[in-house]
Formats: sequence, C-alpha cells, structure tokens
Amino acid sequence: MAPIKHKALINVDLGEGYGNWTLTEDNELLPFIDHANIACGFHASDPLIMQETVRSCKEHGVKIGAHPGLPDLQGFGRREMKLSTEELTAITIYQVGALKGFLDREGVPLHHVKPHGSLYGMCCRDYDVSKAVFEGIPKGVKVFGLPGTCMEQAARDLGIEFVAEFYADVKYNPDASLLIERKKKLICNFLRAWNLDEVRQRVTQQMETCTASAIDGSTCQLPVKDYPISICCHSDVPGCLELVKATRSVVNSFNKEYFPNQ
Amino acid sequence: MAPIKHKALINVDLGEGYGNWTLTEDNELLPFIDHANIACGFHASDPLIMQETVRSCKEHGVKIGAHPGLPDLQGFGRREMKLSTEELTAITIYQVGALKGFLDREGVPLHHVKPHGSLYGMCCRDYDVSKAVFEGIPKGVKVFGLPGTCMEQAARDLGIEFVAEFYADVKYNPDASLLIERKKKLICNFLRAWNLDEVRQRVTQQMETCTASAIDGSTCQLPVKDYPISICCHSDVPGCLELVKATRSVVNSFNKEYFPNQ
Amino acid sequence: MAPIKHKALINVDLGEGYGNWTLTEDNELLPFIDHANIACGFHASDPLIMQETVRSCKEHGVKIGAHPGLPDLQGFGRREMKLSTEELTAITIYQVGALKGFLDREGVPLHHVKPHGSLYGMCCRDYDVSKAVFEGIPKGVKVFGLPGTCMEQAARDLGIEFVAEFYADVKYNPDASLLIERKKKLICNFLRAWNLDEVRQRVTQQMETCTASAIDGSTCQLPVKDYPISICCHSDVPGCLELVKATRSVVNSFNKEYFPNQ
Amino acid sequence: MAPIKHKALINVDLGEGYGNWTLTEDNELLPFIDHANIACGFHASDPLIMQETVRSCKEHGVKIGAHPGLPDLQGFGRREMKLSTEELTAITIYQVGALKGFLDREGVPLHHVKPHGSLYGMCCRDYDVSKAVFEGIPKGVKVFGLPGTCMEQAARDLGIEFVAEFYADVKYNPDASLLIERKKKLICNFLRAWNLDEVRQRVTQQMETCTASAIDGSTCQLPVKDYPISICCHSDVPGCLELVKATRSVVNSFNKEYFPNQ
Repeated sequence: MAPIKHKALINVDLGEGYGNWTLTEDNELLPFIDHANIACGFHASDPLIMQETVRSCKEHGVKIGAHPGLPDLQGFGRREMKLSTEELTAITIYQVGALKGFLDREGVPLHHVKPHGSLYGMCCRDYDVSKAVFEGIPKGVKVFGLPGTCMEQAARDLGIEFVAEFYADVKYNPDASLLIERKKKLICNFLRAWNLDEVRQRVTQQMETCTASAIDGSTCQLPVKDYPISICCHSDVPGCLELVKATRSVVNSFNKEYFPNQ
Repeated sequence: MAPIKHKALINVDLGEGYGNWTLTEDNELLPFIDHANIACGFHASDPLIMQETVRSCKEHGVKIGAHPGLPDLQGFGRREMKLSTEELTAITIYQVGALKGFLDREGVPLHHVKPHGSLYGMCCRDYDVSKAVFEGIPKGVKVFGLPGTCMEQAARDLGIEFVAEFYADVKYNPDASLLIERKKKLICNFLRAWNLDEVRQRVTQQMETCTASAIDGSTCQLPVKDYPISICCHSDVPGCLELVKATRSVVNSFNKEYFPNQ
Repeated sequence: MAPIKHKALINVDLGEGYGNWTLTEDNELLPFIDHANIACGFHASDPLIMQETVRSCKEHGVKIGAHPGLPDLQGFGRREMKLSTEELTAITIYQVGALKGFLDREGVPLHHVKPHGSLYGMCCRDYDVSKAVFEGIPKGVKVFGLPGTCMEQAARDLGIEFVAEFYADVKYNPDASLLIERKKKLICNFLRAWNLDEVRQRVTQQMETCTASAIDGSTCQLPVKDYPISICCHSDVPGCLELVKATRSVVNSFNKEYFPNQ
Repeated sequence: MAPIKHKALINVDLGEGYGNWTLTEDNELLPFIDHANIACGFHASDPLIMQETVRSCKEHGVKIGAHPGLPDLQGFGRREMKLSTEELTAITIYQVGALKGFLDREGVPLHHVKPHGSLYGMCCRDYDVSKAVFEGIPKGVKVFGLPGTCMEQAARDLGIEFVAEFYADVKYNPDASLLIERKKKLICNFLRAWNLDEVRQRVTQQMETCTASAIDGSTCQLPVKDYPISICCHSDVPGCLELVKATRSVVNSFNKEYFPNQ
C-alpha cells in the first residue's frame, strides 16, 4: 500500500518572464504536467504573458493556479519583505483577481493558489502571514503548500482544501522546510552534481516513504497525512525539461502501480 | 423637454493615491456622487487603496467602475504610450480583473469601465484602441465615454452599453474633444479664473442644451443622443469638494424639474 | 558649556513626491533649514522632482545630501527588505550617482548621504548593512546617522566623517533607537497630542543635555560625543512648517548662546 | 581610399538583463567589441547588473557609454512614450549619473551616451527630443547616433562630439532610418533568412561605400561625412555571438587595409 492516499500529480511555475525577458520555454513543459502556477505580475509576468500562458494551459488541459508573489520584480519575489497582514490579504486579492480576469474570459476555472518564493517561505514559517494570504483566496479554490507547516494549519482553520507538495528539485532542511534562494545557486549545483537518476530516486522516495534526504544528510519526514499530492518541479533552472520528464516517468509508474484505476 | 433622455448622474475618479501618497480625501466626495471610477494600480492606486476605496463606495451606495490606465505610475497615465492592440486588451483584462477581485469579495457588482487619462484620449481618437480596450471588458458591464468619438462607435459595434459623459471641469476643444494634460495646469488656471457660479453655468448648459463653450470661445455640440448621462468631476484638483457639491446642486435641480419621478 | 561641541544645524528630507503626487511644499521649508536629504527615486522622487529640488536648495544655499532608500516606491522605503550586501552597495552607488548627476550639472557639491526609512533602521541595527551601504558613498562625503549605533561604528571603520542626528519629531525607544513606521501613525498622534512648546522643549533638551524622553517615559542617553550635530525634522507630516520653524527658533537661540562666533 | 575617414569600431548594448532575467551572456561578446552601451535601469538593468557589467568592460578594456532609455521596463524601452523636453533632459541626467556612479568608483571615464530603443528613434526624427536628451549629457562625453538625422544636427548645435553608427543587424528604411520593433521580429527573420556571409557583405558595403540595402530593395545613402564610425551589433538576438565575430572579422580586414597604422 502506498503511503500517499492519492495519485501523485505534478505542478510547475509558469509565465515567469517579464516584458521581453523569458526564463524558459513554458510550452515544452505543458505536455508533462498536471498543474500550472501562473505568476500574476508582482514578482514576474505581465498581462500579455498571463494571457498567453492561460491559453496554452487551456489547450493542454493543464489545471491553472494563481502564483501570487511579493511586489518585487527586481528581486523576483525572493527578497523577504515585511508587509502588514492587511497588505498581504490585499496583494493576494489583487493578483488572484487579475489572473481570474483571464480565466473568466477563457471560461476556465481557478483551481488553486500557491504563494511564490519568499512569500511561500514566510507562509510556511508564520501562521499570521499564511492566514492573511489565504484570506484573499476566493471560496472553493484549493491551496498548494508544504505539509506540516503554518500553511497546512491556516488552510485547515480557514476551511480551505489543502494539497501537499513534494519537491523534485529543491533541497530540504533537516526540519523538512525548504531552502529558498534568490538565484537558486544551490539548485544549479544540485542539478550539475546530481544526475537524473538521482532526481528519480528522490521523487520516488518521497512518494513511497514520505521522507526525503536533507542537506545535512539526515532523513526528514514529510507529514503529508491524507492530503492529495502535487510534486513541484521548477521551470527556471537549466535542464528543467529533462527534470520534468524524469519526474513524469517515475510518477506515471508509481500511479500505475498504486492507483491503477484512477 | 430636456435634451437628454435620462436623469443626470455624477462620476468621480477615486483611489488615485499610491502607497503613502494621496491626491485628495475621497471619503468627503462619496456623499455627493453616483458613480466611482476606481484606479487599478497601473497609473495610480495599489491593493490596499483599492480595498479601502471599494469598501467606502459600498458603504455609501456608490456604483463602482474600473478605471484602467496606461502602465505608467510616474506619469499618472497621462503620458501617451504606443501599445499593441493585444497589449491594450490584456492590460484591460488584468486591471478590471484585479478590481473585480475586491468587488467579488465584498459582493458588489462591477458597474462600468472608464479608461483613464491618455488611454481615454487615445480611445476617443482611435477606433482600434477603443475596440482593443473594450474587448477586455466582461459581458454586461457598461462603458463610460465621450459621445461622438471612437469610444461610442466601438461600444456600439461590440454591443456594450454606453454611458455618455459631460465634463464639469475639463475644457473642450472646438471639436468637442477634451484637453488632457499631465499636471492639469489649465484646469488649475480654470479653477482659479472661474468661480463656482461658472461651473454651475457650464454643467447646466451641457444638460439643457448638449453644448459647451470651447477653449477658443466657440460653442461645440456634444452629441449625446439618447444615451444615459454621467457628469465627470475630477477629484485631483484643489477645491474639488466644492466643485462636486456645486455640480450636485445643479444636477439635483435639473433632475427634479425634468425627471421628477425617477 | 554646551554638551555638544558644534553649532546645531537642521536637516529635512526633501523631494519625497513621485510623479503627480507630492507630500508637502518643500519650498516653504527651505528658508529654515541647513541640510536637505534628497530622495533618489527608489522610495520616492523622480528625475524631474530631483532636478527641481536640487535647484531650489541651491537657490537657498541649503547643503545637499543624497537620501537613498530601499527599492520600494509602494512602501515608501518603509517596508523592511532583505538585500545582499553586494546589492546594498550597488543600490547606494546607483542612487547617489543619479543625484550627483543633477549636482554636477548645477555645480553644487554632494555634502552628505543619509539612508532613508527602513534602510536607516537596518543600518542602525546591523553593522554589515551599514558597512555595505557606506561602501557605496564617494570619498569625502559625510554620512548622517544615529550616534551609538552600527552607523557610527561603520562610518568610523571606513574613515567616513560622521554627523550625529537628533530627532525633533520621531519618538525614541528606551535604548535610544528610533520608532520607524510606514505611515507615521505615532508621529501624527504625537503632533496632535503635543504642542509646539513641547517640540521646543524636546529639541532643547537634546541639545543641552544629550538626552531624550523615551516612549516608556524613561530618559535615554544620546551618545553624540564630539560629532557635529544636525537635527532632523520630517517634512511629510501635517504641520511640518510650524515644526521646522519652532525647531529653528530654539536652535538659533542655542547657537547664539553657546557658539556666538560661528 | 576608404569612404570613411576613421578606423571602424564596434559597439554592442550590454547589461540588458533585469533582476533574475538575462538576455544574453555579455561576457562572451566582450573580447570582440570596442564600445559598450550599458543600460541604466529604466528600460533594462539594475544596480547589481550595472556594477558587474562595468567591471567586465573594464577588465576587457572596452570603452563604456551610457544607454539611457524610456522609463518602461515592461516594454524594454521600445514602446514610444510622449515626455516633455524637461523630462527628457532629467531622465538623461538621472540615468547617466547613475552609471557614472559605478564608473567613478572603478576609475573609468564615461566615453559616450547612446539613447536606447524608441528614445533613439524619437531622437532621430525629432530635433527637440534630441536636443533635450543631449542637454543631459556631461561635457566632454561623445554621442553615438544615426548620421543624417536630428541626432547629428542636435549634437553639432550643442557642440557635442558625434560618432556615426552603422548597423550590422537592423534593417534600413529607404530613407536610411532604422526599423525598430519591440520584439525584433524582423531581425529574427533576417537572421534566419540571411547567413553570416550576408552579414559580412552588409557590413563591408557600409564601410566601403557608405550605402546599405533598404527593406524595399533600394540602396540608401548613409551620410557619415567625416565622423568617426562605430558599427552596432545587437546582443539580444539569437546567434549574436556569431554575428559579432563575423562583424569583427570584416572590420579587422577593412581596418588593416585602409588604416594600417592606427
């Protein structure tokens, strides 16, 4: 019996360009993922990019979530900022509403919300931040987050459906929190140092045992309970297409074995 | 018989601060107006200001419209910019969606959309700009604009309900177009040079004869046809509260005389 | 004998508008101050405002300093952000350089640098932040800061001339640090609650005894040593002109008594 | 005898990333160019990128110019905006000053100023724009621009040393003006459609005859007179390294033949 109670799915951050700048070719990744977290213009993206990304996701049948971030394009939402709780709620309403404008027009529902970058890290660590952000989410929309953190607790308290994330390509601290860096230096080293076999091993270990290797070599527990699972792969790293494909392959095998009828 | 076919109403631009900066005390104006055009963060406003402005309008029963602008906080949306039609549609969807996020949360409908500043001027003059902007407006939402311009034509072609505007405090060119300036120098001179009696005369003339005095002294025709009317008063000029009150007073008298049962 | 070793001077933050927004009428304050800290476009100001502010200061013989802030117009540089030390140095070089562009053109020297808002608070508390910021200051330019903090220490270590500040209108914590808030709520209460006599008393106490009343009622020591003194008055509070005039008056009396020949 | 009176040199726009986004690997291009035009934060670049780019240019002995643009990161300075002449001068002073901050610190002189994107196009067509921009340039600094346009005339009238540009990779209109597009679609087609031999032919024709093929197949005259020449290659196109190398190779041959002793 699998330790996780639901078929594993895959989510990726998309639409993370800005104006003439792009990070990766989103369209290459779409055939291999289930959920897209679309940037909403505060840490990345702009109206044209959001328009195009929503349309591409719709064509590929990928479910769409909002990926609100801190108001900091220059820092890509990866420089921690102190905002009041009123402001955290307001920036969530604004960004989610802006994305919903494009979804409404395309007749596609908003599936989930996942905070980005430093906002995600702040939500994990600080219950008040999580609560303030989640209060900006429309009813019936799920939240993606790290299980065992303030995100899980705030979602439960507010009656929001929670989807637990595993991470294919971010290192865990020994306490099962994530290492978030502005320029993802560690991730790049990780991608260079580790091969795709190790990515596959890492993802498989998380799905089969709900544990992961931490940066200090210890094994940390990922307390996913009975939550649905979505595995996050990053799209802003070199080699992300191969990483997503490798993850898809082990996820498909896992799902076929444990959830043959879903 | 009045030349206009509907009771006259009053609209004002609100929420035009940014961060710690404010232009005027919006709350003072709310008791005297019917429609608010709320800035959406591109030329002015931010999520906190939008949140507060939506709540204040709701309390006062003022109908809320989105006031999308060019992406130019520094120029307050009053520096003309060349955007592609795809971009014009996308920035409208984004801004209207962001405001709708706050409205949905407060359970208040979006009543109308009115482009701001240079975008308004571009819409008046350029049919393709009007059409691109209006294509970003959700179904069932009205548009406020200058009658006899490309705005009216694009609204008609797209099947959008049009509300014709008169202007209490912007000077008309002889061809019935508006003088739009970044810092409203002329308006300030106008406010200094003219007194409130003249504002009352100006508004009354527009309601009763659908004409206005142009900057060259000639009389221009305002082709409002059978459209509903909303008279725009600006909130970012010194003395705006007195101007709004003066307009309210003549509008009330006019409505009482011509539309006693509405 | 006065406890301070130099004639007291007065500094004010100027140029804190943005685009069409203004905070106060800077020009009214110029006749009453010695030093201006001009915002450089990151937390407030823009090229046109800087141009005008530099010219006004030059006309009034007011010495000009750069007032670099965190890259956050929406938060007015009052939302703490985590930046790397490389980034702190780079944003200082950029902002100081931009202001120097206007000074060079007007043939006016750069007198000092004073960090703004949260950056000032971070400099006070964190030696590495102070050092990183001060490394971006051109040679021969002074720094304004709070004595007894990391700012003083970093200035000394880097061989930068330090000017100690007193505060006319910011409350002190018991440890002689400052209370910095995004919207200056306390200051407004303070201005409403206290009268100008109390401002005069407060400034006089700081000059004559190098102590101040803290928010808990205790008396805190302001360790100004032999540093030159500049007393900061804020320009973004209601009644700032009266506050500056009141400060000027007690400063003039103090200087006349203790430094009659300077 | 060569039609141009000076050795041909090569310039490239550098530092055109923003935050975590990059356009190309600038460092690869540095060994092959003479002049860098460094973005100053308005259409691209930020303080960290400027710092790094200035240092890299210094290491490679590449002369540095400021590349000021319109205040529009989202449009990469390629959406035309209407600014007053005062504002054009002020944004030039600001951006050039900011870059000069980094140059002063590294002990490197500012060699030239070259407006970017739409601002370049506006300078070519509109004498008042050129004049306003050039008035923001410090004394003794050259300007790079298109000969035979308002840029040349304004530089001459203001006594600024003018360097005439040829373009390796932008198409000419029949009147010798340039085609400037937001996303360089034509350039990409051009790069795909033409091979490097054709780039070499194009550059050689410009150096040897001061003419170029226009988009309509006609031959346009490039009125470079006796001005020094710098050939612009773009760094934000795929294959830019090969394009720069091809240009370098024909430029070296040309210089060796006509200016063996320079």
